[in-house]
Amino acid sequence: MGTARVVFDRWSGRYADRIAGVRSSAVRDLFAAASRPDMISLSGGMPEVSQVPSVSVAAAAHDAVVHEGAAALQYGSSEGRLQIRSLVAELMAEIGVRVSPADVVITAGAQQALDLLGKAFLDPGDVIITEGPTYVGALQAFSAYEPDIRCIPMDDDGMRVDLLEAELKRVGPQGAKFIYTIPNFQNPAGVTLSPDRRRRLLELAREYDIPVVEDDPYGRLRFEGGHMKPLRSLDDEVIYLGTFSKIFAPGLRLGWVTAPKPILAKLLLVKQAADLCGSNFAQVTAERYFLGTRWRKVLQNLTHTYAERRDAMLAALDEHFPDEARWTRPDGGFFVWVELPPYVDCASLLAEAVEHGVTFVPGDGFYPDGRGRNCMRLAFCYAEPAAITEGIRRLAEVVEDRLELYRAFIAAGAIEAPQEGAA
Amino acid sequence: MGTARVVFDRWSGRYADRIAGVRSSAVRDLFAAASRPDMISLSGGMPEVSQVPSVSVAAAAHDAVVHEGAAALQYGSSEGRLQIRSLVAELMAEIGVRVSPADVVITAGAQQALDLLGKAFLDPGDVIITEGPTYVGALQAFSAYEPDIRCIPMDDDGMRVDLLEAELKRVGPQGAKFIYTIPNFQNPAGVTLSPDRRRRLLELAREYDIPVVEDDPYGRLRFEGGHMKPLRSLDDEVIYLGTFSKIFAPGLRLGWVTAPKPILAKLLLVKQAADLCGSNFAQVTAERYFLGTRWRKVLQNLTHTYAERRDAMLAALDEHFPDEARWTRPDGGFFVWVELPPYVDCASLLAEAVEHGVTFVPGDGFYPDGRGRNCMRLAFCYAEPAAITEGIRRLAEVVEDRLELYRAFIAAGAIEAPQEGAA
Repeated sequence: MGTARVVFDRWSGRYADRIAGVRSSAVRDLFAAASRPDMISLSGGMPEVSQVPSVSVAAAAHDAVVHEGAAALQYGSSEGRLQIRSLVAELMAEIGVRVSPADVVITAGAQQALDLLGKAFLDPGDVIITEGPTYVGALQAFSAYEPDIRCIPMDDDGMRVDLLEAELKRVGPQGAKFIYTIPNFQNPAGVTLSPDRRRRLLELAREYDIPVVEDDPYGRLRFEGGHMKPLRSLDDEVIYLGTFSKIFAPGLRLGWVTAPKPILAKLLLVKQAADLCGSNFAQVTAERYFLGTRWRKVLQNLTHTYAERRDAMLAALDEHFPDEARWTRPDGGFFVWVELPPYVDCASLLAEAVEHGVTFVPGDGFYPDGRGRNCMRLAFCYAEPAAITEGIRRLAEVVEDRLELYRAFIAAGAIEAPQEGAA
Repeated sequence: MGTARVVFDRWSGRYADRIAGVRSSAVRDLFAAASRPDMISLSGGMPEVSQVPSVSVAAAAHDAVVHEGAAALQYGSSEGRLQIRSLVAELMAEIGVRVSPADVVITAGAQQALDLLGKAFLDPGDVIITEGPTYVGALQAFSAYEPDIRCIPMDDDGMRVDLLEAELKRVGPQGAKFIYTIPNFQNPAGVTLSPDRRRRLLELAREYDIPVVEDDPYGRLRFEGGHMKPLRSLDDEVIYLGTFSKIFAPGLRLGWVTAPKPILAKLLLVKQAADLCGSNFAQVTAERYFLGTRWRKVLQNLTHTYAERRDAMLAALDEHFPDEARWTRPDGGFFVWVELPPYVDCASLLAEAVEHGVTFVPGDGFYPDGRGRNCMRLAFCYAEPAAITEGIRRLAEVVEDRLELYRAFIAAGAIEAPQEGAA
């Protein structure tokens, strides 16, 4: 694509305000250049789809299209087929949420649901509340509607609800359009919102009358400990986003949203304008793939695989990373979040990391405001354990070299040593 | 969905300005109620997918997924797979447009491209120029970004370029964000922009420095006469939208956009925020379906089928419709546009038509400003010829009854007879 090159744009003054300033990031360009065969990727949040039996998917697609005939090939309803919405209702019941198919709209991955939420709710300047850091795709989707994004810090128990309360006091009742949270194995932080905080977050949302958006792509990818109740199971006004990308495959672009009916009706209206309807072809295939029980075994194996990779990453971090670094220890999902001393700029580290044959995502992309420069997101979902170990070793060298430099500066009094907790 | 019922919405004050006033139309609700088995639909623009061999599609999906393996199931690039973009370049070459795969972005049907264009170009109040009437989905997509839509009337040779010039004089150079046109077998009017007007439209667009968006879903569905050169073949700055929905099947939700590279880069950025990427699964299936030549025979048969249905509709209109009605005689595509005397309200006619067992789409939905109330769009794409004949006969009865009433009013001097050309 032309995005990586500088192209004279004679239309540069014509775009909408919302995107006139959007640029392809330097990081994206770097990744595009980083396709060396020995490169170890700790950057992309890609599921290990090689474990999804493509022969089963091929058979599901074949049988579904033959069985459904023209219905698989025709335009569909904007909300999605009743069959797949019923499947979603069953999947939701398994995690403790009771919804009917009429409470579900099928979307093009959960990403489309984020875009529809932004489009339905956000005028320029509207406040929304998210965790900080948060999912870069949510920031992209919401930012197109020019909101004022307030980020609430997390600790090992997820969003700091005390700080959420302070922010809600500032904005006041109905003072934010919604609170967006990824309670399970948060992207990028890897932390999980504790049961007590779930209840408190919902209390606060009720008190301040602000809708809660629960984005739950990783909830079923838990490695240890008990499953925690979704927010939606505790409060039926929560807007819940789910996806088939992590329990099946992202290549079909199937996700869903459940919400109170008036909100769902608005999302459906904006969805009609966005793509008329989703893909019946993908929906019939997913319906058939989820017949029987094989998908459960596949998901179980996938979860086991991700757990092994998480173990490999944490062990390698423990062994190789310097004392100045701190990182999270996720119980599931795809990601570890690493925090380095505040004077380290991870975006500039990335170029060196790529030279050393490893990629990660610098932390500032997960904030709307330039914070997170001293942080990095490491994905353990995609590389094999041995590659993860080697990747962390390579990355540790790069980090250590940089820290060595700063230690010399600090010793010379050129920069100040960070105070504990000052970051 | 809840859209058809009145549901108390405690969030009614919270939505974005762009959609707060959007309601599900009475027409949509009427269609939802109109599912009687003997109902003849002249309303929906649905392709006759029963002629697309589902066994071939099933085999294409099966073989593609087995062959491509994980690539079919994984996240894809935002612009789409190189293979399907190469296929699009070949399809474009067949209609006289030379583009490279790098000039193509795959979208979720052409509808997504309309939404991306709106998002990339339109601030509230921006002027855009369309034909009047125009595609209801384009109005929906653009309206979400609150533009000022100026509609240019058509005649049998398509958009009146003299009236376009007058409008351009009003808005001035760069005074509109783009001109949106459906040059071939326009939806809903069924008319085709003549070669002379194509050249003139492009001259005017250059003179006033306003981008042209060419939406061409029906271009390959020509029943007679020579294919006309796409605008894009005459001017490489034209933004061209294509779709697989009419040459293959809408159920895969595959379309494309070609545009100058800087514009394409912006569309790609907004697409990333909208859905991350399209469906690799659908793309590999389409790539395989278009291997070999069978699709050409299928398309040829489809075109023949639509031509027969067009013939049936025009013959029935000639036989049954009253003298006061005028209608277009399309050389391809899906639609005939009927104009009744200005005192006839087609939205109110629809309820009677449904009682008589036939549906159509009232014309006012194809204008942004309430015009078109005395018009109707009739789709000949989906019903069998015999059903079309019967449907037009039923509809003619309803129209005749209404006109009879008005003739009595006119005879009594209660309303004025329309002047020739006054409509």
